[in-house]
Amino acid sequence: MPDAYRSFARVKALRFEQGELHLAEIAKPNREGEALVRVTLAGICNTDLEIVRGYTGFNGTLGHEFVGVVETSPDASQIGRRVVGEINIGCGNCNCCQAGDARHCTTRTALGIHRRDGAFAEFLTLPPQNLFVVPDNVSDRQAVFTEPLAAACEILDQVTINYSHKVAVIGDGKLGQLIARVLATTGCELILIGKHADKLELAAKAGIKTFKCGVSGYGTGSGSDRVRSGKEITGALHRSFDFVVEASGSVSGLQTALDLVKARGTIILKSTFHGGAVPVDTTRIVVDEISLVGSRCGRFEAALKLLESGQINVEPLIAAEFPLTEAVNAMASAAKLGTLKTLLTTVY
Amino acid sequence: MPDAYRSFARVKALRFEQGELHLAEIAKPNREGEALVRVTLAGICNTDLEIVRGYTGFNGTLGHEFVGVVETSPDASQIGRRVVGEINIGCGNCNCCQAGDARHCTTRTALGIHRRDGAFAEFLTLPPQNLFVVPDNVSDRQAVFTEPLAAACEILDQVTINYSHKVAVIGDGKLGQLIARVLATTGCELILIGKHADKLELAAKAGIKTFKCGVSGYGTGSGSDRVRSGKEITGALHRSFDFVVEASGSVSGLQTALDLVKARGTIILKSTFHGGAVPVDTTRIVVDEISLVGSRCGRFEAALKLLESGQINVEPLIAAEFPLTEAVNAMASAAKLGTLKTLLTTVY
Repeated sequence: MPDAYRSFARVKALRFEQGELHLAEIAKPNREGEALVRVTLAGICNTDLEIVRGYTGFNGTLGHEFVGVVETSPDASQIGRRVVGEINIGCGNCNCCQAGDARHCTTRTALGIHRRDGAFAEFLTLPPQNLFVVPDNVSDRQAVFTEPLAAACEILDQVTINYSHKVAVIGDGKLGQLIARVLATTGCELILIGKHADKLELAAKAGIKTFKCGVSGYGTGSGSDRVRSGKEITGALHRSFDFVVEASGSVSGLQTALDLVKARGTIILKSTFHGGAVPVDTTRIVVDEISLVGSRCGRFEAALKLLESGQINVEPLIAAEFPLTEAVNAMASAAKLGTLKTLLTTVY
Repeated sequence: MPDAYRSFARVKALRFEQGELHLAEIAKPNREGEALVRVTLAGICNTDLEIVRGYTGFNGTLGHEFVGVVETSPDASQIGRRVVGEINIGCGNCNCCQAGDARHCTTRTALGIHRRDGAFAEFLTLPPQNLFVVPDNVSDRQAVFTEPLAAACEILDQVTINYSHKVAVIGDGKLGQLIARVLATTGCELILIGKHADKLELAAKAGIKTFKCGVSGYGTGSGSDRVRSGKEITGALHRSFDFVVEASGSVSGLQTALDLVKARGTIILKSTFHGGAVPVDTTRIVVDEISLVGSRCGRFEAALKLLESGQINVEPLIAAEFPLTEAVNAMASAAKLGTLKTLLTTVY
């Protein structure tokens, strides 16, 4: 074994094990039939924070947003290429997988989320078919957004939004910002609703109309808070939107969405809540024939095209960059309210 | 004034006023620009029962399912014709009304439901454009089902269901029975899930596959009941359906629907609940990209075609027929658990 190889025999990784987050040295990842990717840059997502809060039961290396370089692969054409990676790995045999979409395979694993070590490490493995070559004009700091940007693009795979539609996005955080930028490309009449002046300002700089609601706007407040929120928004925006995207991560965001959507309109649910069932006014849904569409992971192709064409600039959404060796601190920083995208780099 | 006319100057009507249900003699209905219809037969709907339970605040003559004969109309071609009537009456000026659909006009009235006297009376009025002539081969006892049958047809106006889809209807009551019959016309793989052997037998006689679940199946039981229900159905039907229609009228029917629908599947919500917000597992909706579609009133044209063609026979769903003079007893009878359609006739 050459020296250069042996030096990587053990690699750094941010692990969550038995309820504890720690930087570890682990055996270099190695999976039969999969490509080995040297991670360059990785992004911290709210899902990572939820795992650390113990909501999902995951144990292992965290992280699923990354860009890296292929070291080895069964597909020799990938070696040395800069890649991003689809995070769902299917069984290959079920109806979903046979249709070319592992995202809903019931026995799937998911990078850094479910039964598979993730991207907050010097190396990861993925099946070659999960890797997508990054166009040369897309920087690492742009490419690392491919996975969450694909999740935003998923909305346009599920519903048809065009210039004739009035659309509201609730939530000015990481995901809401990306969603607003993706939906703006349709030419629809768009508004981003949030609580943070600085984040709304970021969106405004990207040409997006914004609406600031009070702290009680869609927070995890009590019932009376939510009533106030509905009334606050009522005057200008009450029941006027064809589409409302709930991306606030707050339980009451769905109630606000119901206040905003018009009869026969559609609410797209992007946020998951781990606090149990959410109270929903199903009578409003039936009487006004509202549709509620759950939306999760999207296709990488669409996201890479948006980055390559320059239609979307994601770099202003980066709040901080930490070396992987500082990953525990980076997670604490990302968990602070108001933080946009926190990155981990292995180039240090 | 001829004697025959004067004899109808005051007419019988079933009224709900100040929380009290009673048969009254009221002035013969008369509205500028509307047709006057002599009601022949009317049907009692769960909405009527909910009004009497005080859930909606309505005061006036009940009833919205009817067939009758036009006595007078601004449209002379309607006079003497046997008709059924669209129950939503719009403002005529808003976007919905201009598009020919008053069902979502925000200032609409609704026959016997909202700011307009209804059909449990000897006479009612409706705008001429709300009336549909009943084909000669459709009996009164079939035609009186046009309104709820249209509500069932509405599902096929909202989603595309065909022979390739696996579909479950939850609820073997009046609405579930009609929905199952309408969806069966698509050739889809259909199952009606209910708790009542006699009602499921009715559906089986119409060629519909049925599944009987226990009393706790989708009742308004406690949390533990609902868990049992999910497990009960799990073995055979768990997460296997492309479409699930919730028509049970029970809060936990939605949870059962979530147990039955597969990833990327659609739940159609037909039942309204007046007990407040319903707890919903929105995380399942997001992760598995489930769609939830609220569904209410449908177009009469589709329903009348199904009756005219003989594709659907609704008469077996009639449980009892009372004279209008016995309407208070009829309502009490209809409110008894397990009753299918109760009719009120003015021909006595």
